[in-house]
Amino acid sequence: NNLNWLRAVSAAASIELIHNFSLVHDDIQDNSELRRGRKTVWVKWGSPMAINAGDALFVIAYQSMLDLSKHYPAEMVMQATNILSEICLKLTQGQFLDMSYENRHDLTIEDYWHMIGGKTASLLSACTQIGALLGYAKPDKVEAFRLFGYHLGLAFQVQDDVLGIWGDESVRGKSVASDLVEGKNSLPVLFGLVQNRQFASRWKQGAIPQTEVQEVANLLENEGAKDYAEKKSVEETNKAMQFLEQANPTGEAGEAIYQLTN
Amino acid sequence: NNLNWLRAVSAAASIELIHNFSLVHDDIQDNSELRRGRKTVWVKWGSPMAINAGDALFVIAYQSMLDLSKHYPAEMVMQATNILSEICLKLTQGQFLDMSYENRHDLTIEDYWHMIGGKTASLLSACTQIGALLGYAKPDKVEAFRLFGYHLGLAFQVQDDVLGIWGDESVRGKSVASDLVEGKNSLPVLFGLVQNRQFASRWKQGAIPQTEVQEVANLLENEGAKDYAEKKSVEETNKAMQFLEQANPTGEAGEAIYQLTN
Repeated sequence: NNLNWLRAVSAAASIELIHNFSLVHDDIQDNSELRRGRKTVWVKWGSPMAINAGDALFVIAYQSMLDLSKHYPAEMVMQATNILSEICLKLTQGQFLDMSYENRHDLTIEDYWHMIGGKTASLLSACTQIGALLGYAKPDKVEAFRLFGYHLGLAFQVQDDVLGIWGDESVRGKSVASDLVEGKNSLPVLFGLVQNRQFASRWKQGAIPQTEVQEVANLLENEGAKDYAEKKSVEETNKAMQFLEQANPTGEAGEAIYQLTN
Repeated sequence: NNLNWLRAVSAAASIELIHNFSLVHDDIQDNSELRRGRKTVWVKWGSPMAINAGDALFVIAYQSMLDLSKHYPAEMVMQATNILSEICLKLTQGQFLDMSYENRHDLTIEDYWHMIGGKTASLLSACTQIGALLGYAKPDKVEAFRLFGYHLGLAFQVQDDVLGIWGDESVRGKSVASDLVEGKNSLPVLFGLVQNRQFASRWKQGAIPQTEVQEVANLLENEGAKDYAEKKSVEETNKAMQFLEQANPTGEAGEAIYQLTN
């Protein structure tokens, strides 16, 4: 039946709700005033209401996952809900690391992978893993889909980091180089710190104003950070592609997922 | 087997975790600096970390409920997890109402029951309902246990409201009459507002300082608010007792629950 995928839609909604819950709370934590071009929840309704709205979204995400029981056996719904819980816990661990890293100058590149593994890649791996599970894929395929999503998530985050420093404003919809102004511990920045050259000494001196952004971005590029990050992004995309080939999705949806990855 | 109750412990832990998650977020929302005689999480670690810690507790609560699958069939675990989700959503609705009610002087007593139904009674009803479910009680017994917990929760909250204005500091472990200073929309206060006499006009004039607390508490008592609230607390306790008798718990645990209620 071509419409079988409809059975799994409440799982997709669940992950979308988790994503949105985490954004509502992130925006409070990061003091962000804009999201998708609109005022963030806490700016509009105050932090107490925004914390509560995020909590409600979180509950509804679980309810949406449990709704799978209309179309799937209880054992499978439990499995999907367990995966969701694991990933949510990793999200909070990644968020903890991200906040702990603020104002630290002794971070390694390993710390970076650890953080984005939790903050970005886990959620994407949950999407592909749960999707495969609900499509009744065999365990080794489910695992291949999980790893595909995980590496795609890493590749996406590294690419986002590159664009956050050297990206084109019109494409990205955010102001260019804002990551440098915000002092974000992105991969290029950590690479630059490990080099311990001109960029590192400037970074340790304190916040970078908008007027200095171009200069610092050039410094970082000259020290090889852009090349390094782009190489890593390609590497992770290749790993993702390898696991996708192992998962071997077919048909219209299979083609779509290859296109998305490329 | 006398140790059968051990199978259900992870459900009890789950509800305790939900309770604690809600306190961690509540303390941020209410700007409370002390909890159980110690600094609150947000005071010690900052709001961003406290929001995240609450989120993590929330996930672990679900994981603990899902752990029931070691001892119960998947269908039952799903049922318990669905009850948990419903109650969590009611908690956020109750919290929303509580925050919405701040600085409003047009609240009715009906608004009060609506709010504490979500904020207090739901969680207690989840305890007794899930407990009965996991003890393999029949559906009508599970429902009697649910209603027992719900009315016990209402009785508890009303009693807490009375103590919050006329309570003995040494018993309560909080400063007496702090509810009047904090401007809390407790049942006695709403009763006083509905009377629309001396208390109501004083309340509408603005915050009550510690020095005026005794006087305002007396005013409220003279207008019948204490008697009213105490009567309501007894009524709810009686309803709880009625449903408990219907549920008819026996043995050592049965006696303990009667004692607790009294």
